[in-house]
Amino acid sequence: MQFNSDNAAAVHPAVWQAMIAADAADMPYDGDGLSRELDARFTQVLGRECAVLWVATGTAANCLALAAFVPPHGAVVCHREAHIEGDEGGAPGFYLHGAKLILADGHSAKVSPETLAAVIDPIRPDVHQVQPHAISITQTSEYGCTYRPDELAAIAGFAQERRLKLHMDGARFANAVAFLDCAPGEACAGVDALSFGFVKNGGLSAEAIVFFDPEAAAPIRYRRKRAGHLQSKGRFLSAQILAMLEGDLWLANARHANAAAAELAKAAPDRLLHPVEGNEVFLCCTAAEREALRAHGFRFYDWGADAARFVTAWDAREDHVTALARAVAGL
Amino acid sequence: MQFNSDNAAAVHPAVWQAMIAADAADMPYDGDGLSRELDARFTQVLGRECAVLWVATGTAANCLALAAFVPPHGAVVCHREAHIEGDEGGAPGFYLHGAKLILADGHSAKVSPETLAAVIDPIRPDVHQVQPHAISITQTSEYGCTYRPDELAAIAGFAQERRLKLHMDGARFANAVAFLDCAPGEACAGVDALSFGFVKNGGLSAEAIVFFDPEAAAPIRYRRKRAGHLQSKGRFLSAQILAMLEGDLWLANARHANAAAAELAKAAPDRLLHPVEGNEVFLCCTAAEREALRAHGFRFYDWGADAARFVTAWDAREDHVTALARAVAGL
Amino acid sequence: MQFNSDNAAAVHPAVWQAMIAADAADMPYDGDGLSRELDARFTQVLGRECAVLWVATGTAANCLALAAFVPPHGAVVCHREAHIEGDEGGAPGFYLHGAKLILADGHSAKVSPETLAAVIDPIRPDVHQVQPHAISITQTSEYGCTYRPDELAAIAGFAQERRLKLHMDGARFANAVAFLDCAPGEACAGVDALSFGFVKNGGLSAEAIVFFDPEAAAPIRYRRKRAGHLQSKGRFLSAQILAMLEGDLWLANARHANAAAAELAKAAPDRLLHPVEGNEVFLCCTAAEREALRAHGFRFYDWGADAARFVTAWDAREDHVTALARAVAGL
Amino acid sequence: MQFNSDNAAAVHPAVWQAMIAADAADMPYDGDGLSRELDARFTQVLGRECAVLWVATGTAANCLALAAFVPPHGAVVCHREAHIEGDEGGAPGFYLHGAKLILADGHSAKVSPETLAAVIDPIRPDVHQVQPHAISITQTSEYGCTYRPDELAAIAGFAQERRLKLHMDGARFANAVAFLDCAPGEACAGVDALSFGFVKNGGLSAEAIVFFDPEAAAPIRYRRKRAGHLQSKGRFLSAQILAMLEGDLWLANARHANAAAAELAKAAPDRLLHPVEGNEVFLCCTAAEREALRAHGFRFYDWGADAARFVTAWDAREDHVTALARAVAGL
Repeated sequence: MQFNSDNAAAVHPAVWQAMIAADAADMPYDGDGLSRELDARFTQVLGRECAVLWVATGTAANCLALAAFVPPHGAVVCHREAHIEGDEGGAPGFYLHGAKLILADGHSAKVSPETLAAVIDPIRPDVHQVQPHAISITQTSEYGCTYRPDELAAIAGFAQERRLKLHMDGARFANAVAFLDCAPGEACAGVDALSFGFVKNGGLSAEAIVFFDPEAAAPIRYRRKRAGHLQSKGRFLSAQILAMLEGDLWLANARHANAAAAELAKAAPDRLLHPVEGNEVFLCCTAAEREALRAHGFRFYDWGADAARFVTAWDAREDHVTALARAVAGL
Repeated sequence: MQFNSDNAAAVHPAVWQAMIAADAADMPYDGDGLSRELDARFTQVLGRECAVLWVATGTAANCLALAAFVPPHGAVVCHREAHIEGDEGGAPGFYLHGAKLILADGHSAKVSPETLAAVIDPIRPDVHQVQPHAISITQTSEYGCTYRPDELAAIAGFAQERRLKLHMDGARFANAVAFLDCAPGEACAGVDALSFGFVKNGGLSAEAIVFFDPEAAAPIRYRRKRAGHLQSKGRFLSAQILAMLEGDLWLANARHANAAAAELAKAAPDRLLHPVEGNEVFLCCTAAEREALRAHGFRFYDWGADAARFVTAWDAREDHVTALARAVAGL
Repeated sequence: MQFNSDNAAAVHPAVWQAMIAADAADMPYDGDGLSRELDARFTQVLGRECAVLWVATGTAANCLALAAFVPPHGAVVCHREAHIEGDEGGAPGFYLHGAKLILADGHSAKVSPETLAAVIDPIRPDVHQVQPHAISITQTSEYGCTYRPDELAAIAGFAQERRLKLHMDGARFANAVAFLDCAPGEACAGVDALSFGFVKNGGLSAEAIVFFDPEAAAPIRYRRKRAGHLQSKGRFLSAQILAMLEGDLWLANARHANAAAAELAKAAPDRLLHPVEGNEVFLCCTAAEREALRAHGFRFYDWGADAARFVTAWDAREDHVTALARAVAGL
Repeated sequence: MQFNSDNAAAVHPAVWQAMIAADAADMPYDGDGLSRELDARFTQVLGRECAVLWVATGTAANCLALAAFVPPHGAVVCHREAHIEGDEGGAPGFYLHGAKLILADGHSAKVSPETLAAVIDPIRPDVHQVQPHAISITQTSEYGCTYRPDELAAIAGFAQERRLKLHMDGARFANAVAFLDCAPGEACAGVDALSFGFVKNGGLSAEAIVFFDPEAAAPIRYRRKRAGHLQSKGRFLSAQILAMLEGDLWLANARHANAAAAELAKAAPDRLLHPVEGNEVFLCCTAAEREALRAHGFRFYDWGADAARFVTAWDAREDHVTALARAVAGL
């Protein structure tokens, strides 16, 4: 019973079907018919004009998005526990040619205008210090917490005031939208570029980089090729993405995963380290308790010495979730 | 009737089957069971111990392989028409952090110790000039020509003598082995790293980087992650590769493509710009002749003002090939 | 009465003389007679075999030294307030091609095995996280504090145990040696590379990068040229350095500066934010007090809201120092 | 009798005097009074508004200038024998983060709209190929040849038409102006950035980067610091430059050097490989002839197997020049 991660879950059957349907040879790279549909499709979904590029990984999506905004001598401000800081093997340093990450604080891995200002304000505006050019936030955050529209508006306003671009790492954007139960565009309002994740949510190997200023996308097409991310059979990436958007499959998948997480949260409300606002549940539990859970066949990651992380995927089995909820309640 | 390129061809049914068979969740990234089989499987196929990493594109494969050998202040020597020089959007400059490509000449896009020495010898061994650290050759070459074992041995000997590492871009390595009808290891003898291509030959999105010194692979695992090329559902890339190796499907596919190219070559021996030693055919033909062919429904690329390139894929239809051969013979 | 910084002080007369004496044309770059003396001269001064390269700035010295040890996918561990982190405009990101700085804590901007371990231990040894390859410490620290031989030995031991290279930013190495009153080699024992500063101490535009493993220097000669730091009239940089080493002028200058700082420290022992172990004095003082001092003609930097920094240079005038000491005592 | 190079020549006495006059401590970096005079001074000399940054070397000047115009995924077009291609240790690859140099042909190391177009036109405007963003020309060229105003206008027009920025490597700009006997601004008309050299012409360690669009200079101030080229005692670089501009010393020095070269050229008109339009003379001469000259005490570089290069510096001694002219005439 697997609660390790959503990033190795199965691929949704509709995604397989769409890929196989795209098998017939078409134009290579992103010249195929499916890739050409992306801009219009995302514009429709997000309610704002946008230009979209596919890539195979969230790391590439985040770093290429940031490359549109941050020069080599600049910096990105992000949360101290952001994925780009701690889990992407230094990819921002590579893609941004040595630009810096400036690390802000905030509860549940969410930043705010106050915590951003706390690290930006002391920077002297002279050449001896690296100046920020963008902010990157994660929706849902590394702790599965969701920025509400008003929180987002405050950050976007701050970004604009400081003339910083705003990037959103949306590896679990679907879970945020499902949690907020809002129009997708509201969950990323004010953002300049969005890494819109599909792989954790039923896709195989396709993520979307969404630029709300289509002109910002132009140089990034060159950067994508230069990074070896322009696949020759790109139609299979577009096929995945379009299948996920079709009939709001992405939202249905995320709702399923969120519901499973909510069921777990309900089973042990006193153990929660963070509010459950997506598909991740962080529970206080001792080493002995974790051992007991594992003895029952549950797989999950330790989170430091006194906690555990449970991630529910789009294909979480209800019997597994119920079994885990019971086991956790009974600790 | 499509002869534009092999890089947008269909995916082989056995590859689809293997991918679908790998659907059940496994460990993420390259921790899955299939990825762990790669080293042993390639060691068997190539007859030399090796360590193997998958990536999604040939560009990433070439550049990550070279990153193992070339420091930022160094250079790679390659043919003037090599893919890394002309068709990878400057990816070597990105992955090698500004290292240089030094361009050598040679017939049919093949280099030799003589043409390599012609550009290396004038380099003064001082800090004012960029020093070569590796040679990169392409098997088959950009013009579909194949290095024979003795040519390869001469280049490998030259590389060793000059203390340069030797990389082989094997985007069409299968076609070379099929043409040479030799043990696969002979077609890359003396090479330090091989980009072993599958996408043009029936794969979907998986290429292999083969390091014959397994220690050279270690830092490249970090570089792959840092480049955003460590896919979380990596098992689907390994599945593709293993399916291609199974029962020598890769060779069967390449033989089919090569046979189609040979049929075309036979139809117009006087028009050949380069010997046909793989799955690419370059024919002299006027603009009017090209127009006539296109009017018959054949699709292909112009090659300058007076020639055309025809590429035959693993799934070339015999009736299409025969039709093209007749049309070309009748020009 | 200037106490802003030592980095804009005058040039020592002996340095001028040596430069002018070097005016006659010699071999360009570092082929001149003076540059060829450096290795032997520093080996003598520091008591360990070393290879030495001159550059014009401390930033270039630090970054080129680190480039010898840290690959683009690696990291350097340094103090949170280190010059390379806060005052070099992101130069490490440039010179190390996107490698990361990992920030450790410690009193008075000095690290220890404990504070280093606190940030290194949590790093998972996998490709998702950037691995440290070197430690960089500053002698004297950003707060003018000096590592004692036993502190240095502990850090060097820790570095060796973790297989990390050890770099010392010695922009004020002279002040540290003068303070410790030890053999110069003791103040950098166990270090793999030392940025030996001269500009703040009476030089004009020459710093030395000292590699205690001469082989490590070889690629850095290429990197220096590639960074545009190989001056064609390099003899004038060597002349400066040799003049400073001659008759231990560098130590005499540092002793003078340290003595001035000690006099200030003695005048206001209760106001000291950090022990005075070099030529920098950080004093608690209110905005009103700072205004009063400035009204008396003293120039210095504010250090946050409640403190001030006074730096004494090699050419600090005794009357100025005495005047400032009195003024501070009388606050 | 030294004719090896102008880059290791002596420093002009007026430069020494200006440096020593600048000894009194001033604001560090480029905050000093002399550095603040540069913009106005160059605007006056060149007759166009400009913003000016000093650096220590021509390599840094060229690469920082180009960094203002060329993104990491772009390219610079320059002559095949340009200094940035062959003699700067790959510095453009470093400063431009992997951008490419595209090599054009042309007599005497001078390019023209035709030779530029010959390499630019074949570049497909797609992401697979690196697109040019700037042209770099050298005044005087690597062979001591000077672009005439009409040649320059043609190149500037071509650049504008292709939307490429135009950089001029003016390591020997003074010699070009002296040769053309024109207003300095005419010798760089239409150029977007000029590396204005002083070191080869009597300076010690100061070159100027001149941006004719002052806004282009802003990010380069960050890049200069990040490259370790912002010297703390920057006043000494400004002092050198201002001394050279004072009373047109830079032109007087260049005229002297050019006159010496002209005298040599006149002595052996049939041996000239290139027209002498500056301070470099390339003469056909056999190994035996070169040996004979060296036996007379003349020092110079071989230029391939059948030629020699003689460079005359600002301080060329008339008796040496006359002796060499006679010796050459008598071969």
